[in-house]
Amino acid sequence: MKLIFTKSSLNKAVGIVMKAVPTRTTMSILECILIDASTNEIKFTANDMELGIETIVEGEIIEKGKVAIDAKIFSEIVRKLPDNDITIETDDNYTSTITCEKSKFNIAGKSGDDFSYLPVIIKEKSISLSQFTLKETINQTIFCTSPNDNNKMMTGELFEVKDNVLKVVGLDGHRIAIRNINLSGNADDVKVVVPGKTLNEISKILSSDAESVVNIYFTNNHILFEFDNTMVVSRLIEGEYFKINQMLSSDYETKVVINKKEFLDSIDRANLLIREGDKKPIIINITDGSLEVKVQSAIGSLNEDIDINKEGKDIMIGFNPKFLIDALRVIDDETVDIYLVNPKAPCFIRDKEENYIYLILPVNFSA
Amino acid sequence: MKLIFTKSSLNKAVGIVMKAVPTRTTMSILECILIDASTNEIKFTANDMELGIETIVEGEIIEKGKVAIDAKIFSEIVRKLPDNDITIETDDNYTSTITCEKSKFNIAGKSGDDFSYLPVIIKEKSISLSQFTLKETINQTIFCTSPNDNNKMMTGELFEVKDNVLKVVGLDGHRIAIRNINLSGNADDVKVVVPGKTLNEISKILSSDAESVVNIYFTNNHILFEFDNTMVVSRLIEGEYFKINQMLSSDYETKVVINKKEFLDSIDRANLLIREGDKKPIIINITDGSLEVKVQSAIGSLNEDIDINKEGKDIMIGFNPKFLIDALRVIDDETVDIYLVNPKAPCFIRDKEENYIYLILPVNFSA
Repeated sequence: MKLIFTKSSLNKAVGIVMKAVPTRTTMSILECILIDASTNEIKFTANDMELGIETIVEGEIIEKGKVAIDAKIFSEIVRKLPDNDITIETDDNYTSTITCEKSKFNIAGKSGDDFSYLPVIIKEKSISLSQFTLKETINQTIFCTSPNDNNKMMTGELFEVKDNVLKVVGLDGHRIAIRNINLSGNADDVKVVVPGKTLNEISKILSSDAESVVNIYFTNNHILFEFDNTMVVSRLIEGEYFKINQMLSSDYETKVVINKKEFLDSIDRANLLIREGDKKPIIINITDGSLEVKVQSAIGSLNEDIDINKEGKDIMIGFNPKFLIDALRVIDDETVDIYLVNPKAPCFIRDKEENYIYLILPVNFSA
Repeated sequence: MKLIFTKSSLNKAVGIVMKAVPTRTTMSILECILIDASTNEIKFTANDMELGIETIVEGEIIEKGKVAIDAKIFSEIVRKLPDNDITIETDDNYTSTITCEKSKFNIAGKSGDDFSYLPVIIKEKSISLSQFTLKETINQTIFCTSPNDNNKMMTGELFEVKDNVLKVVGLDGHRIAIRNINLSGNADDVKVVVPGKTLNEISKILSSDAESVVNIYFTNNHILFEFDNTMVVSRLIEGEYFKINQMLSSDYETKVVINKKEFLDSIDRANLLIREGDKKPIIINITDGSLEVKVQSAIGSLNEDIDINKEGKDIMIGFNPKFLIDALRVIDDETVDIYLVNPKAPCFIRDKEENYIYLILPVNFSA
């Protein structure tokens, strides 16, 4: 095999497939990137058996072939080579020579035949949206999942398509994040749970371009994301997701309209007085026209007042400040609406169109 | 005590004195910043008993007084407050109220009387140079010191003034960095060893401005740096420094003139093939017109050629790549001169004027 790339196209492709290379594994072939130029195009593949990424790389094929190369050292070498043409050549023992200007690396390779290819996905059910929207939606919900939870469902996110709306849901035991995205065209109805790790990695390689499209295909066991020259395939989490609708309610006793930045900055400051593992809540005291943020801890105390618009009853309620901060950070609106029932019932932050809904459970406090 | 500051002047002053707050200590008063407004100016002080920093802060004194406040929480609060006037007020129990807009923090303070003031330095022997030059000189030598060495001398740097030249030297068991700086005016001759930690911290608060001056004062036990509104006092390391001149030699068998960036990039790539703790050297093979960088390890091999100008004998010599990288990174020249004697003798990288000298010991290798 002999291939020639520009440094930038090689660097970009390696960066993409690296996202599917496991950091720890007992199967050394999984630590490799497969370079497959056995046909008329060059494909790079990495696959940790749950998540697989394949991307087509621009380059010149001088001699066809394929090889599996250790991903970590290969990516480090590519990054440090001069910004010029890079040649990759392998001999019969899969020893790979990487040449650029006067620099010549030799590293051991493996037969590409031992590499696990990505599963073939039958493209029946699908939706399309912009890369920007998918990237944003993941970032606006993924923090509510619980990555190492014993309950597998909490480690993933629900992707549900119904009536041309994609609903993405993440939750742990204390809060729920929901985003609803209107789809164009006639989308098929589906309901799957996607591993959080897959979504984290894909959000890193999606572009922030609102014009570029990502096509998502669903089967019973897999999800396929197709964008630019890249395919990301992931296993799904099997089983039935939580019954979200039972947890949501539109009844409320108090509604607050508040400037988002003022509220976020204030809670961020209150959080300074709470050491990790402290389990101290911040207390929010809502009266006519004013929301007071209070905290009292071993370190000190804080009081702040924020002007608000209020409907309904006064209420005093405690929260884990981190949960409020996480939700407020990913809301783009200048003001947010907060709906409360009583100090033991969940609070909702949601917009009128329900493009987003954040449910946060309160924390007991001694007044 | 009652004082009013702008957020920016308060934030800057706290950032400066924080450099002398110890991360771990059994004396809780050392974890504090002393705010002293008992006279007509406001001074902030921190002191870890080896290194002390005092800075004069712009602000309005409404009521005189002083207080010691926990540095960590105080700096976090200041950083997160809105960009507006900040009032600090203490009561008779040293409880401190920090107010900004509608935000009001209360934190416990301590009596300023328990605080250890900085030692008084008699300003006899002194030198002056630009903040930029001192900052650069520290960064260009400090990496050669050995921060946790049993030999105290290796943890510090020699500051020697002789014939209006400041010589700064750092060394560990494998290499030496020397920088010579021409001073203006009539400087007093001195020879002291300054703790590396002091130099590290001061380099972070010196400005990169070539117009701003720093005055350095020397006593038998202390060094004082004075710049802007700030004073940094540090103990010195007692004892006699290594006899540097015996280690230097201007004899050589081979002289190489090489493009610095090409050489640095090449060694940087060679370093990819060496895992930490590997003790593998890179091998440099110098012949007429060409310097070859070679490495062979369990990971793979690399060969590179770099065009050079050479005088004298051919030589093949091994190095720890990290030592070459560290030295080359802080040299600003486009080309560097390298002087070699034999594969067991130290190599020198130095300019003609000896503004800088880097000595690096070679490593044995099997050819």
